[in-house]
Amino acid sequence: MTNTTSSKPSLYTVLSPALLHLYDLNNAIVVIIDVLRATSTITTALHNGAKCVIPVDSVAKCIELGRQIDGITAGERDGMIAEGLEHGNSPFEYPAEFIGGKTLVLTTTNGTKLLHMALDRGAGQIITGSFPNLSAVCEYLVAQNLPAVLGCAAWKDRVNIEDLLFAGAVINQVKGHFDINCDSSQIAETLYTKAKKDLYGFMKAKNASHYLRLMNYGLEKDIRYCLTPDLANVLPFYENGRLISFPNS
Amino acid sequence: MTNTTSSKPSLYTVLSPALLHLYDLNNAIVVIIDVLRATSTITTALHNGAKCVIPVDSVAKCIELGRQIDGITAGERDGMIAEGLEHGNSPFEYPAEFIGGKTLVLTTTNGTKLLHMALDRGAGQIITGSFPNLSAVCEYLVAQNLPAVLGCAAWKDRVNIEDLLFAGAVINQVKGHFDINCDSSQIAETLYTKAKKDLYGFMKAKNASHYLRLMNYGLEKDIRYCLTPDLANVLPFYENGRLISFPNS
Repeated sequence: MTNTTSSKPSLYTVLSPALLHLYDLNNAIVVIIDVLRATSTITTALHNGAKCVIPVDSVAKCIELGRQIDGITAGERDGMIAEGLEHGNSPFEYPAEFIGGKTLVLTTTNGTKLLHMALDRGAGQIITGSFPNLSAVCEYLVAQNLPAVLGCAAWKDRVNIEDLLFAGAVINQVKGHFDINCDSSQIAETLYTKAKKDLYGFMKAKNASHYLRLMNYGLEKDIRYCLTPDLANVLPFYENGRLISFPNS
Repeated sequence: MTNTTSSKPSLYTVLSPALLHLYDLNNAIVVIIDVLRATSTITTALHNGAKCVIPVDSVAKCIELGRQIDGITAGERDGMIAEGLEHGNSPFEYPAEFIGGKTLVLTTTNGTKLLHMALDRGAGQIITGSFPNLSAVCEYLVAQNLPAVLGCAAWKDRVNIEDLLFAGAVINQVKGHFDINCDSSQIAETLYTKAKKDLYGFMKAKNASHYLRLMNYGLEKDIRYCLTPDLANVLPFYENGRLISFPNS
């Protein structure tokens, strides 16, 4: 994953947190992808004026930190609001009039876990990606010209369709700028090109596990939002323990 | 993964040995998939009259056992014949006039490793799958009517295209007989339906990592053989430490 002037930087896709150890993150930009719904909600909160989002890896830490800094505590376990937290993982819970100027302390089943794993493994930079900020992610990756690792949060380590679709959407846009020797990336882009005309319809037709899980909670609106590009197009960037909106994004 | 009279058995696809622990194998038929080239070679050797194939997980064991039972020792590490072994991992090394009536002791980078992992995790039954025995695998899975787990051997735990294509080919044929709630299976079948008209061309167009690796060794003929259905259509079945051709297959 070196980047010399004579070659393009590498790009890899990691299909599950359980495969993250196979990849060198040290000089790479790691894109944390948890389409339903953590990273869609993070970009939405920042787009709507949140000061920052602090990802934490346990409900207990979320409650404690929320109290210390007077933040909004939010998060889910198994798709439902976690006990002891105030808010859930839906992007619709964070309109500008509620979240503007505030700090969101967030814990989720898969996305925030993967972010902390990437940190522990020495990721060069960490950003978060989702369809609502697809363009911001692609523009940043192209501009930085550094090795990139697209990290799918999956569901309890099981590979899911929607995170792979987002990885494929990124690859589809940026592939001319990267040297891609990675079967997982090819699989992701093939899946995306098959699905792109109607991402929601594809998820439905394939009985995507997370589609079924959220539909059971009546969350079709969330699914449709989380599959729509550029509705909250900022770049969440990890710095000093917080996700902030990258300057000028 | 229970199988009651009122429902179809489950089917899951495991994209990498590093994800195998997420699945319950106890009552399942586990299909070991290592298209390039271990499982293609195993079915070819049995089709050509080998008495049995003994998969072992190290070169040292392969040499020792080969000496004890006067077997043919074979195997590769990183795509090349491993030091100390007589033969490699190409199906073309095992024509009937050479392998007929003999025992092949085989060790490979990924496929035999996954087989031993599945054994350790209490797999109900173990068979091996590859395009040369696609129909035998599908017919057996449908006839048994038990939960099935399609296990991709991958490459040093990194997901690869060709094993996923084979999983997709199986799913495409048997899906009416199974209850499939598994995103990995949907991804596999989508990839296969996109690629099926020309599997070799798809591997080439996608710069599949194993395609490139074998082409570097001049093994186009092996790749083409290993992507062709039913050229050696028997069912390797694991029993008492050996893979034998399942009766009547």
